[in-house]
Amino acid sequence: MARIPVPEVLRFCVDCMTLVGTSKPHAVALAEVLVEADHRGHYSHGINRLEMYVRDVQSKTTDGSAVAKVLQESAATAWVDGNNALGPVVGNFCMDVAVKKAKDSGVGWVVAKGTNHYGIAGWYAMQALKHNMLGMSFTNTSPLLSPTRSKKAALGTNPISLAAPAKDGDSFVLDMATSAVALGKIEVQRRKKESIPVGWAQGPDGRSTTDADLAFKTSALMPLGGEERTSGYKGYGLALLVETFCGILAGSDFGPNIRRWMDATKPANLGQCFVAINPGSFAPGFEQRMSDMNNILRKLDHAEPDKPVLVPGDPERNNIAKVKKEGGILYHESQIKASAELAAKLKVNPMKAL
Amino acid sequence: MARIPVPEVLRFCVDCMTLVGTSKPHAVALAEVLVEADHRGHYSHGINRLEMYVRDVQSKTTDGSAVAKVLQESAATAWVDGNNALGPVVGNFCMDVAVKKAKDSGVGWVVAKGTNHYGIAGWYAMQALKHNMLGMSFTNTSPLLSPTRSKKAALGTNPISLAAPAKDGDSFVLDMATSAVALGKIEVQRRKKESIPVGWAQGPDGRSTTDADLAFKTSALMPLGGEERTSGYKGYGLALLVETFCGILAGSDFGPNIRRWMDATKPANLGQCFVAINPGSFAPGFEQRMSDMNNILRKLDHAEPDKPVLVPGDPERNNIAKVKKEGGILYHESQIKASAELAAKLKVNPMKAL
Repeated sequence: MARIPVPEVLRFCVDCMTLVGTSKPHAVALAEVLVEADHRGHYSHGINRLEMYVRDVQSKTTDGSAVAKVLQESAATAWVDGNNALGPVVGNFCMDVAVKKAKDSGVGWVVAKGTNHYGIAGWYAMQALKHNMLGMSFTNTSPLLSPTRSKKAALGTNPISLAAPAKDGDSFVLDMATSAVALGKIEVQRRKKESIPVGWAQGPDGRSTTDADLAFKTSALMPLGGEERTSGYKGYGLALLVETFCGILAGSDFGPNIRRWMDATKPANLGQCFVAINPGSFAPGFEQRMSDMNNILRKLDHAEPDKPVLVPGDPERNNIAKVKKEGGILYHESQIKASAELAAKLKVNPMKAL
Repeated sequence: MARIPVPEVLRFCVDCMTLVGTSKPHAVALAEVLVEADHRGHYSHGINRLEMYVRDVQSKTTDGSAVAKVLQESAATAWVDGNNALGPVVGNFCMDVAVKKAKDSGVGWVVAKGTNHYGIAGWYAMQALKHNMLGMSFTNTSPLLSPTRSKKAALGTNPISLAAPAKDGDSFVLDMATSAVALGKIEVQRRKKESIPVGWAQGPDGRSTTDADLAFKTSALMPLGGEERTSGYKGYGLALLVETFCGILAGSDFGPNIRRWMDATKPANLGQCFVAINPGSFAPGFEQRMSDMNNILRKLDHAEPDKPVLVPGDPERNNIAKVKKEGGILYHESQIKASAELAAKLKVNPMKAL
């Protein structure tokens, strides 16, 4: 394990991305999203994916210098072509447009085609908090989720994120895949040689399996809710809701037509959706009510003494406080090793631990 | 069992509601939503609830003649006071406003306070289909859902509905509670003296129970996803997302402050949210892509021979076709009996079976 200060992780990401030809501001945009994922404790979406972005720019599968462009707009909407730019470049652009629309029209709804992996969905939703607005973000992803009753995956893990401001910097931040779990969670159980719960993933027969190895090889995650009798069809419906707001509205690739995960032979052409909602258009006192709701939830009597009820966003808030107290993000030895290898390959300075 | 033609069920609902002082168009608005629920096969939200609406108007807990009013608006939004009118009266009003806003501005986002139970959320979302638009609808409800780790309910079963048009009358219609299941499903298991799956509901200790009787008495449904290890916190987050769009944005009652289910001693003061999205503001060809997506899903290889993959909305479509073929909605004997008793009490003509 090694602890690395946030600015040093940022520096490393920017160095790697610019070295392969990414323009500096675009490299910074990507670095900020990846490092924020680790900062919040979501290592699955952080610098462990840096090499994928490096490879995509290096192979010109993603255009490290391209910028997004509005194709069509109305008072509250915009349709954007991401022009195959880096996901965070497109995402930040779209969220800015959404916030501007919401300032004038109450809501901004922006949909992009031709975009790429954008890191954590919550990053974009949270941009709205700076403007005292609610933000939402959705993206389609490579097929990994099996619709209820299907034998194989046909939709992505299609995340939904909502960020809503409360008083004094408090907030409610939901950022969830619509699959029961991420593939990474199955990988962890597999390495530990432990089983997985019913409802996480299917075997090749299309039925729920508890065998982590089989689940990982099959790569057909079950939707949130798991099996049909525990309402997995609702999670499947939510994954399709996300696809509708992304690929279907945007006119990008969608469903099983999206390139396979980690395939770098053709552009991803993902669809993404960004929404900003101005609470000033509705009842006065939004932030006070959001705080009241949060605090009611946090004070609920809980079943286990050491497990208080949390508001979505609280675990991440706790992780950020921990990083601040300790002076850096704690990385596993295997991540440090992988980053050092990437540094050596690209001939950039490796990350310096505390 | 008895089969009753749709117009006769409508007639009966309108007679009951007008007899207790509901204005005729408002009685029709409610009747249409309740009968549509039965028509679609969702008997839990149909005429089995008629007596509740009758009692609410009779006791003046709901105002059977009131109409909704826009309090504040912008190009894409409206904040509405439901004035304690019947839920469907408020809901239809709000959805009309949302569609009008979406015609001009691309999106319409309308939030109402002071409203009442509005039947199936899908009714309102589906209004947008008539205008070739996407519709969404959300409502908060009486506390029945236990946030992850909590020992008791603090949020409602808070439904999410999205309707999206496809080609030739096809569509994708999601209409789901954010709890794992409805309380009614537990009641059914209880009557059959059968157990319930892990992840449906909690016992008084705050842990998942398989005892249907205990689950029914505790009335603390688990969120979609069930226990924490199967990601129940995502369903909890979605229930809070709905509450944020409803009570928190609208300035109505919210969370555990909403009156208890079936309590008729004070107005419900619910919050509801209605959204219309004009696909013409984004990539051309929305309906074709939606149809393509639907048909890809329907043709997926399935695990069990007699269980094809369905698109959300397909089970309801099948039920509507069945009602049409058979000439009426099939009701259980107990429902016929309850409706006959209500008819006798109010001195209106009972429903005539085929």
